[in-house]
Amino acid sequence: MRMRAIQSLSLGPHPPQSFITSSNSWKPPSSSSQMPSDELAAYLRRRDGLIAEDRALRIDHVRADSYSEAERKADRVVRSIRAKENISVWGVDHEHVPHPYPGMEFLNAKEIIMKTDLYSKIVSKMPKGGLLHVHQNASVEARTVLDLALGHPAIHICVSGPLNAASLETVLPKIYPIPVEEYPAADAIGITDPLYTGGWVPIKKARELFDPALGGPAGFDKWVLSTFVINPTDAFKTYNTPMKIWLKFGSTFSVTDPIIRFVPIQKEYLRMFIRSSIDDGISYIEIRTSFFKKYILAEDAKTKLESREILLIFREVTNEMKAEMKAKGREDDFAGLKIIYNTLRIVSSEALKADLDQCIKFKKEFPDLIAGFDLVGHEDGEECKPLVYYAEPLLHFAKEHPDIPFIFHAGETLGDGTAADMNLYDAILLGTKRIGHGFSLAKHPKLMQICREEKIAIEVCPISNEVLRLTSSMPMHPLPIIMNQGIPVVLSSDDPAMFNSMGLSFDFFQVLVASEVTGLLTLGQMARDSITYSMLDEPSKRAAMEAWKRRWDKFVEEVAKMNP
Amino acid sequence: MRMRAIQSLSLGPHPPQSFITSSNSWKPPSSSSQMPSDELAAYLRRRDGLIAEDRALRIDHVRADSYSEAERKADRVVRSIRAKENISVWGVDHEHVPHPYPGMEFLNAKEIIMKTDLYSKIVSKMPKGGLLHVHQNASVEARTVLDLALGHPAIHICVSGPLNAASLETVLPKIYPIPVEEYPAADAIGITDPLYTGGWVPIKKARELFDPALGGPAGFDKWVLSTFVINPTDAFKTYNTPMKIWLKFGSTFSVTDPIIRFVPIQKEYLRMFIRSSIDDGISYIEIRTSFFKKYILAEDAKTKLESREILLIFREVTNEMKAEMKAKGREDDFAGLKIIYNTLRIVSSEALKADLDQCIKFKKEFPDLIAGFDLVGHEDGEECKPLVYYAEPLLHFAKEHPDIPFIFHAGETLGDGTAADMNLYDAILLGTKRIGHGFSLAKHPKLMQICREEKIAIEVCPISNEVLRLTSSMPMHPLPIIMNQGIPVVLSSDDPAMFNSMGLSFDFFQVLVASEVTGLLTLGQMARDSITYSMLDEPSKRAAMEAWKRRWDKFVEEVAKMNP
Repeated sequence: MRMRAIQSLSLGPHPPQSFITSSNSWKPPSSSSQMPSDELAAYLRRRDGLIAEDRALRIDHVRADSYSEAERKADRVVRSIRAKENISVWGVDHEHVPHPYPGMEFLNAKEIIMKTDLYSKIVSKMPKGGLLHVHQNASVEARTVLDLALGHPAIHICVSGPLNAASLETVLPKIYPIPVEEYPAADAIGITDPLYTGGWVPIKKARELFDPALGGPAGFDKWVLSTFVINPTDAFKTYNTPMKIWLKFGSTFSVTDPIIRFVPIQKEYLRMFIRSSIDDGISYIEIRTSFFKKYILAEDAKTKLESREILLIFREVTNEMKAEMKAKGREDDFAGLKIIYNTLRIVSSEALKADLDQCIKFKKEFPDLIAGFDLVGHEDGEECKPLVYYAEPLLHFAKEHPDIPFIFHAGETLGDGTAADMNLYDAILLGTKRIGHGFSLAKHPKLMQICREEKIAIEVCPISNEVLRLTSSMPMHPLPIIMNQGIPVVLSSDDPAMFNSMGLSFDFFQVLVASEVTGLLTLGQMARDSITYSMLDEPSKRAAMEAWKRRWDKFVEEVAKMNP
Repeated sequence: MRMRAIQSLSLGPHPPQSFITSSNSWKPPSSSSQMPSDELAAYLRRRDGLIAEDRALRIDHVRADSYSEAERKADRVVRSIRAKENISVWGVDHEHVPHPYPGMEFLNAKEIIMKTDLYSKIVSKMPKGGLLHVHQNASVEARTVLDLALGHPAIHICVSGPLNAASLETVLPKIYPIPVEEYPAADAIGITDPLYTGGWVPIKKARELFDPALGGPAGFDKWVLSTFVINPTDAFKTYNTPMKIWLKFGSTFSVTDPIIRFVPIQKEYLRMFIRSSIDDGISYIEIRTSFFKKYILAEDAKTKLESREILLIFREVTNEMKAEMKAKGREDDFAGLKIIYNTLRIVSSEALKADLDQCIKFKKEFPDLIAGFDLVGHEDGEECKPLVYYAEPLLHFAKEHPDIPFIFHAGETLGDGTAADMNLYDAILLGTKRIGHGFSLAKHPKLMQICREEKIAIEVCPISNEVLRLTSSMPMHPLPIIMNQGIPVVLSSDDPAMFNSMGLSFDFFQVLVASEVTGLLTLGQMARDSITYSMLDEPSKRAAMEAWKRRWDKFVEEVAKMNP
């Protein structure tokens, strides 16, 4: 029975089309009769058996017997839409996008993707389960962050000297909340004024006074936003290697971080992140939050509050959002949020110990909020230390605090046998519960076996990997290798603000169009696994899964009814 | 013992540098003493054990106990040179190559590569063993082909009308041998002459008369050569997707094929291919030769000789080259050449049967020359049929003619579950002895297991895969995945004329710089495997292996003596 189900996925009534021109619909011709010869029939049976055996470890095939009729029908509808759009959308040239194909570079493809039925009618509506890998300071879209900054009188901007058309290309602004006593005089001039000498200007005023020759307020927005995000030119030209793109990537954080590290904005930022996640069908969040900087700025833009304040905000906003959803009768749509405490993998071993101690303290006070511990940063970067460097304090912590699991970034690299790649050995030996990225995992047969057997889920971040140039497109991504080895996968957005890829829909979309094996049922299993491999306690996990299942059943019923 | 050897490869006295900035030289600091704690020491032992287990299937580790002192020393020398050049060569900007890195796009990197010590002193001197995947009609470098054409009075050129600066960019020439009675009048004008109306012009004359405003003879060469090869602009701009680059790739064959399919040039072409291969350290060749076109043009440029003539040429030239090497006392340097008969995977099932019959006929007459059978073409292409389409005649052939093994191209694709990807199932079920490309094999756990257990070697073509855009760089290539699964690999050049990557040195180089695990010993094992998995009969294989071993021992002695 399972073999038949698998067969129908790959050679079903709607033969999938891939890369526009290739097709699985070929049937061997029989030269002598209408029916295949006995020998050929036997061959085709062996072939079916081999395909089934090869795919037997995949999540969608492991559970193949349990799909409902509606699920199977919905899967066929989705495959049919995909096949049609491979030709109608990805098979034609678009303005400014001369070489489109399914799973192409996201930053170039985004506008095309949003116009597809597959995105707008299917993937964007799908209940996604948990978002388990997202960085707090990259979780709200750039335009919203700018609006938050423009909306608060404390936020000021400063550049080194008057901006002009040339310097716009390279100058990064400082955008900071400053205390009222440091506000400039009311007649402060704008940052494009030739007389401007580099002091603070209220951001709203700087925008209003922005030189009309540079586009005025709209030009201001365009420039500032270009420093908040990675643009196609950054990713595909100026910084088109994995090493170089991190220069740009890092700069986006340095520009936006001071805006967010400010209590009144932080609160609203978190609220907006949760709300937009819910809108995208995400019902649970584990958010990596950096405690590398040891403060958050109070409303007065002067007082440095200690990091505990951040946890108070998270608790307050999460409870508020849960109450809001409950009030709307939408309890199924939000099961809550937890924090994965992280610091940067540039700290000394001593500093790490201080962080581990702080994490323990937080866990005691906020047991439901702290889900785990992680170290983040550019694994290939010169300043970053490998996990083995921290082996001693981490071993000690693991022994003493089994209630705070490690959820390590590891193997976010193209390296083979480099320090970043070797981090996978340490992450696993140190007992990581999941692996952030694990991009280089496919190179490690023993580690893949361990991940499969010990159910260490991989937080795969398709668009992040592509924008940060670990892969040039989704069809080049190693995801199918990992999936076919039976390793659990949860799709994640990583730093959606910087990649302009808010929510999980774009990541799900790219995965769906880059494979003929993967279908809606596969995405559904990934969503399910994002709850299974979450750090929710068992009762909450069961409740979240039941809530997801109710939404999923409704969703597939609707998709199954579509006439593709 | 093995574990220690492995450990010394990865954390030895010359810590490998990768991607310039990351390093394996990190050691965990011990906070309390000079010696690591017991717990840490135990951890590091577990870590060593896990790394060893993870790499246990690799060819270089399977044989790790048998390396000589000279081999180990040579491997360290090579790692040291690589580490230094990662900084001195790949860590600095070069004119016209703004973002260099090890394993970057070959067409942009070639000139840099040739200046490295790693290439010029090591890889180019290494005895490579067999070249098992190369297409006959893409085996001699473009400049040489043009010179052969210029050297034969029968070769004429024709374009549709007078060439100018604009049309140079797009017009493809016809370059054909024509019979003497069709030669144009002696006062024929050149192809850039405004009065030219499109007839045949002797190629030599067309070159001499080429408009000085378009560069004269040098401009002619530049233009013609640009139609023989894939240029960086083709690969990275104009046709920068796997589907599109095949348009350009196909056109290079259509331009050069008529020049080569001409007895006097074919002979010299083959001679030059073998000679340049020997110069590059290749000592044995299995050459894929297309019999899709059923003739070769005789010296009179008129008579269509049947395909058997091609085998006569191959036998004659191979024997001649063996005699030549013997006369020079260099018998070890050339063990011979065999043909893998192929036709295009666009033919009907009936036409395939005719090809199989011809292959059988050839095998009877030239038993030592015919090594196997293959079907070639763009697997993702619209016109190409999947292997399953031909299952019946191929099954029949396999049963009747076990002396002519299949050596199929399969999985040369980014597709996941597409017809091209599914070809891997059929190649294996039909009993292929090796797999050409197998680029998508890493996605198939069961097929990898079969390849490992049944010793089906994968003919990996690194530069081909990169230029044809299956991978954007060598660090993105799935080769380490395949190797770490214990699947035998032979590195191959595929179509070196089109990629401007003559010999095997460039492919070996790209593999060597893209991994910290791979070293000289790995390349040596690949060379060894290229003889092991060749179609040589057992006595010839033993002799070829012994000859290779003599050269290898001499080579590693020399490398070991170097002062890096």
